[in-house]
Amino acid sequence: MGKGRLEAFSDGVIAILITIMVLEMRVPIGAELEALRPVIPVVLSYVLSYLYLGIYWNNHHHMLQTVRRVTGPMLWANLHLLFWLSLVPFATEWLGTNHFAAVPSALYGVVLLMAAIAFYILRSTIVASQGKDSLLRKAVGRDWKGKLSPVVYLIAIPAAFWSPRVSQALYVLIALVWFIPDRRIEGVLGQQED
Amino acid sequence: MGKGRLEAFSDGVIAILITIMVLEMRVPIGAELEALRPVIPVVLSYVLSYLYLGIYWNNHHHMLQTVRRVTGPMLWANLHLLFWLSLVPFATEWLGTNHFAAVPSALYGVVLLMAAIAFYILRSTIVASQGKDSLLRKAVGRDWKGKLSPVVYLIAIPAAFWSPRVSQALYVLIALVWFIPDRRIEGVLGQQED
Amino acid sequence: MGKGRLEAFSDGVIAILITIMVLEMRVPIGAELEALRPVIPVVLSYVLSYLYLGIYWNNHHHMLQTVRRVTGPMLWANLHLLFWLSLVPFATEWLGTNHFAAVPSALYGVVLLMAAIAFYILRSTIVASQGKDSLLRKAVGRDWKGKLSPVVYLIAIPAAFWSPRVSQALYVLIALVWFIPDRRIEGVLGQQED
Amino acid sequence: MGKGRLEAFSDGVIAILITIMVLEMRVPIGAELEALRPVIPVVLSYVLSYLYLGIYWNNHHHMLQTVRRVTGPMLWANLHLLFWLSLVPFATEWLGTNHFAAVPSALYGVVLLMAAIAFYILRSTIVASQGKDSLLRKAVGRDWKGKLSPVVYLIAIPAAFWSPRVSQALYVLIALVWFIPDRRIEGVLGQQED
Repeated sequence: MGKGRLEAFSDGVIAILITIMVLEMRVPIGAELEALRPVIPVVLSYVLSYLYLGIYWNNHHHMLQTVRRVTGPMLWANLHLLFWLSLVPFATEWLGTNHFAAVPSALYGVVLLMAAIAFYILRSTIVASQGKDSLLRKAVGRDWKGKLSPVVYLIAIPAAFWSPRVSQALYVLIALVWFIPDRRIEGVLGQQED
Repeated sequence: MGKGRLEAFSDGVIAILITIMVLEMRVPIGAELEALRPVIPVVLSYVLSYLYLGIYWNNHHHMLQTVRRVTGPMLWANLHLLFWLSLVPFATEWLGTNHFAAVPSALYGVVLLMAAIAFYILRSTIVASQGKDSLLRKAVGRDWKGKLSPVVYLIAIPAAFWSPRVSQALYVLIALVWFIPDRRIEGVLGQQED
Repeated sequence: MGKGRLEAFSDGVIAILITIMVLEMRVPIGAELEALRPVIPVVLSYVLSYLYLGIYWNNHHHMLQTVRRVTGPMLWANLHLLFWLSLVPFATEWLGTNHFAAVPSALYGVVLLMAAIAFYILRSTIVASQGKDSLLRKAVGRDWKGKLSPVVYLIAIPAAFWSPRVSQALYVLIALVWFIPDRRIEGVLGQQED
Repeated sequence: MGKGRLEAFSDGVIAILITIMVLEMRVPIGAELEALRPVIPVVLSYVLSYLYLGIYWNNHHHMLQTVRRVTGPMLWANLHLLFWLSLVPFATEWLGTNHFAAVPSALYGVVLLMAAIAFYILRSTIVASQGKDSLLRKAVGRDWKGKLSPVVYLIAIPAAFWSPRVSQALYVLIALVWFIPDRRIEGVLGQQED
């Protein structure tokens, strides 16, 4: 079974999610510069979510390069990941329209945490399907980013009730940590080609 | 005529349907945990419909693997299936916003029943185009799932007027029955490769 | 220049248009069967537009099979066609929410007429690029459907102001005429392969 | 790393943006011709933005033809371009619903300027990755259009506060300048094939 359709479907869903978020940005009433002010928190939360979805697309792209054969469990692990990513626009809009209040900040973290877990499950499913010489397992290595992110989300979620600013800062921090594309996989694939 | 464009178009429509359903989830007014309560039935109906669309995508994916040549009737049978699937977000939203009332529960079943019939028509069209040595016919075999589902929907639709809970439980049951990917087709294709 | 990206982009736009129309169907207030009544004209106009977009996708699919090399003018003629198709959801919603009134019926015809002209321009652009042995020119032949449709639209548009029912009947008629896929192209391509 | 997925993802996002803009066109209340009048500025701004997104898709298409190998920085430069393009529907709707007022006209220019800069960054990233014999660098040549556009936007943005008509005329002018597809790249690629 080829992986082309799995990639195309995932790309389609992520492309739609990224653009759906713009739809959530209600055009302000009035044509003055002042009218744009309430849109600012919405735009900021949009930028953060755009960055997160971009990171997921990027890492998904890299990870699937190591896949030769798509299995049934892989299809479902992928749909599971897309499910949590599909809740990002909802969480983003709730965060933006409430000016970064406590509960929306916590919910945003819950969605990120579930997506991180779903990504981990998908990766484990791929590694398991590749047997003990798994190319992806070698590429991933110690994976400090993948281990750090859920821990930080678990701190950020309760922290939102104490100080929403702190949990938002943690979400931005993790986005920046992941911003650099996953060179480990590129490295191992590069060696493979030699 | 290649099947690439048929697959890509179907993937596109299903990807959009899955993500459109999230758009239907109106962000609650207010930033407290309480505000999320009316969203819960909407989320639950979203999860069920996501599962159904995922199952259709999965089975569609498997079925088209046996296709070598796309014919005119196949294109229209496929568009007919996509038409009924495109009504899923509408039925889902009506179900969720009315807290699983009787008529929306019945309508949801009607949409599922029509989609099941459309899937059956598409499969018959493919089998007919493949002649008497049809790979798909062999793969499908006795097909107890495909025969069971419309029967259960036919029970669940009138049952909604008596007890919506019963018909909803039947929809969940059929979703779980289909959740396991169609190994029959994988099996026959695997033998083919030997 | 390959035609893959042109096909993928067109498929994407048509897939989105088909599914966007469902979004326009507002979920009724109330959970009784009665509540579905005002939705009926919206659903009927949706079915007609779904059929039209399906026909365009189908014919587009057939036409591009004869294309070897995509040129700049072809890209723009294709975008021009997609522009008019993108107005179909708007015209459909206006038609459905006004219960098939006169002006929306006429506007619907204008959009169909412009799409038919755009399709004709795209086909001429492709034929011109293929030189005098054009495969597409041979496949199209006398093209009575392509000549009939704009004439009927030109009758249906003013007829809407006299009797909207007549113009709607004409739109349904043309949809049914086109419903049969373009076997002429399939025929010539089939001979080609021999 | 192949470029297929990068192209497919970009096509998906641009296809969605083009069709999302139609969603913004609210169907008028009432079924008379008069009711269409307030929709006219919305349609005009839609046509202009459709043209701009078509131009970007076209140039993106041409530019990626020179790419052999997709790198990490290229993925992010591409996502950065898509981010600014994703703000086009928002700017378009604000422009159209306010009948081309001053601040929305200026904001529209800001989004166009940022997209032009993002396109320049993506092109530079591709040229840098291709080394000193870059095919794209040769194809681009002196690039008077790419240099003219941001300068004109920089004039049009402040001009909006003095006369919105002038800045709108400048946006239309640049759209027309770009309307002709980038024959320079086609030219160099053509020579390559010889």
